Amino acid sequence: MLFKDLLNDGTGKIVMLVFDGLGGVPHPDTGQTELEAATVPNLDSIASRSACGLMNMVDYGITPGSGPGHMALFGYDPTGVEVGRGVLEALGVGHTQADDELSARGNFATMDPDSRRITDRRGGPPNQDRNIELVARLNNLVTVPGYEVKFLSGKEHRFVFILKGADLDDSLSETDPQVTGVPSPPVEAQDPAAAGAADAVNRAITAINEALVEFGPQNTVLLRGFAKVPDVEPFPARYGLKSAAIATYPMYKGIASLVGMDVLDTGPSFPDQVAALKAEWDRYDFFFVHVKGTDGYGHKGDFDGKVRVLSECDRLIPEIESQDPAVLIVTGDHSTPTALKDHSFHPVPVLVRADTAIPTGNQHFTEADCAGGILGVFPGSKLMQLALAYAGRLKKFGA
Amino acid sequence: MLFKDLLNDGTGKIVMLVFDGLGGVPHPDTGQTELEAATVPNLDSIASRSACGLMNMVDYGITPGSGPGHMALFGYDPTGVEVGRGVLEALGVGHTQADDELSARGNFATMDPDSRRITDRRGGPPNQDRNIELVARLNNLVTVPGYEVKFLSGKEHRFVFILKGADLDDSLSETDPQVTGVPSPPVEAQDPAAAGAADAVNRAITAINEALVEFGPQNTVLLRGFAKVPDVEPFPARYGLKSAAIATYPMYKGIASLVGMDVLDTGPSFPDQVAALKAEWDRYDFFFVHVKGTDGYGHKGDFDGKVRVLSECDRLIPEIESQDPAVLIVTGDHSTPTALKDHSFHPVPVLVRADTAIPTGNQHFTEADCAGGILGVFPGSKLMQLALAYAGRLKKFGA
Repeated sequence: MLFKDLLNDGTGKIVMLVFDGLGGVPHPDTGQTELEAATVPNLDSIASRSACGLMNMVDYGITPGSGPGHMALFGYDPTGVEVGRGVLEALGVGHTQADDELSARGNFATMDPDSRRITDRRGGPPNQDRNIELVARLNNLVTVPGYEVKFLSGKEHRFVFILKGADLDDSLSETDPQVTGVPSPPVEAQDPAAAGAADAVNRAITAINEALVEFGPQNTVLLRGFAKVPDVEPFPARYGLKSAAIATYPMYKGIASLVGMDVLDTGPSFPDQVAALKAEWDRYDFFFVHVKGTDGYGHKGDFDGKVRVLSECDRLIPEIESQDPAVLIVTGDHSTPTALKDHSFHPVPVLVRADTAIPTGNQHFTEADCAGGILGVFPGSKLMQLALAYAGRLKKFGA
Repeated sequence: MLFKDLLNDGTGKIVMLVFDGLGGVPHPDTGQTELEAATVPNLDSIASRSACGLMNMVDYGITPGSGPGHMALFGYDPTGVEVGRGVLEALGVGHTQADDELSARGNFATMDPDSRRITDRRGGPPNQDRNIELVARLNNLVTVPGYEVKFLSGKEHRFVFILKGADLDDSLSETDPQVTGVPSPPVEAQDPAAAGAADAVNRAITAINEALVEFGPQNTVLLRGFAKVPDVEPFPARYGLKSAAIATYPMYKGIASLVGMDVLDTGPSFPDQVAALKAEWDRYDFFFVHVKGTDGYGHKGDFDGKVRVLSECDRLIPEIESQDPAVLIVTGDHSTPTALKDHSFHPVPVLVRADTAIPTGNQHFTEADCAGGILGVFPGSKLMQLALAYAGRLKKFGA
């Protein structure tokens, strides 16, 4: 990567404020996107002094998951570094996976005890107490000699399976047959290097089935998305930035932790996050501040809820700006239009406020105004390079 | 290609309306481009509800031929998939080349019978009847044992040479010396794999010269642009789209046929094409509708003619929109500014009308307004990926 050779001894601080699922599409009734409908005078004011643009996080027309969206924001190739489903699931319940751990997403399920055919891929009614009871039982009873096995409760039928040991490869087939009426297949190594891991997981499954034999509708498990943590260059070393994450949800704390950021303590609200930023201001060069609410309301299809999160957070933005970061970035990891109730491929608005930013008119911080910004439409994975440049942290290339 | 793994079972239909040579440059007198001068209220209305942008079909500053322009529109790398000159020439006279055919563009020419030096690279005055007579004679007399040889009439001095047989490679040198006063060189294999093809073509040329020995100013031929059909993944399989082309010119029917689209019957006018679209609406997921007139007037330098084609077609656009495609794209394969009387490198305006399109103001469908669109300036070969996304035909990437 070209920029690596160009890092200088600049000291400008960078704040990257990420509204999860920021981008929207026009509301069918009003024709306005969430950002167009929101009252965000401070973001608008900053946009009018910023370099603005739109980012494709993965590629034109490709809808990013949270993993690829954040890997792009952090400047990694989102198609080259895969944060596997198991890893994300573990992060989501607060477990940041170690290098020697293999994770998978698990479902409690029902099988016919005689034929061993799966009769229900999500065994029994959702019940959090039961989930906790079963997970505790598995943590007590399931052992695989030579490895550590660990189970973490998720929601409803879901849990996380962790196997810890040497030389575990994650090229493994899944045990969820995706249909009922057939047995759950054993794990198979999809690469010779994963033979040991396959054997260990299959022994764990045998032990799980023994532990659950009397447990009625939850008498077996299905495991999917086996994954180890990706091998990435740590973010602080990559950019020469002492880096901190201020996030409230486990998954985002986890992704930041995976790339080597310090995860700061914070209360659950945006004012708490801003307070954490101010408290730790002198200790870091880079702050990743993650707001989850926009994405949550996007998934629910709650237009007004998403608008409200934006408007409420807007009030606190001057407190971030008053810390006088060399670069203040406001953006998202992907779009989650409330009209679609899901992530979408639509490019993500971004503003970069810095002394040398070139504004392009009376900008509001909206998708449409960002389309006319000086940054144009660009790959999200180039944002960190721009951040370093605007912060005065990159030397000239060539003579 | 990432999108291949993300195709879902979506059913949204896509119409791609291509005005050949759409883009223009400002008229020296009025400062208006053809699109700015045209009265296109329906295209303007659609643009105001569309995601707009500009496309580089090959690369910044590169002027596309018709082959690369269409390969990009169809989502293939226009520099990776070459539709050779011979193939295009054959398509232009209505012959869609088979996999085992080798084609070349031919000129009738004059050589001195004694010295065998070329004295005129385009033998004699242009005469279509004579062309047809000569081609018929060659089809009757020229044979190469082990191969089939076929000649197709073109315009003036031009014809298409087709050689059919096993293991024909198109890495062949040309026989046109480009200057007079020297003999036409024999074909040489530029790759060992083409040795058999070189030999067969040279035997054909010997037989051609014998057949034409008495034919005065057209007593030999010059062959250029030897080409086999490119090996491309068929468009319908690539995108999961049952696909039809509605074109009036042989070359464009041919390119569509090469990539595996069904070529629908249509009369020669745009109303005929729209009628064909409506008649076959239920049978296809994707329609490529090609309008030739804009390019024709562009080449002639007839500004008003190009404007007229746009305005006339505009009246019928609501009939296409009333079919309610999930995605309606209007664009070109390259620019053909009347001021230049030729293809040009200028990026091509594009609109994508879809439910989740984000408009960016009071757009007209012009080069300048498209520059401010949400799609920005992007590679033409990404258009199909965007079309699939807007049609709801792509899953999320990553968790």
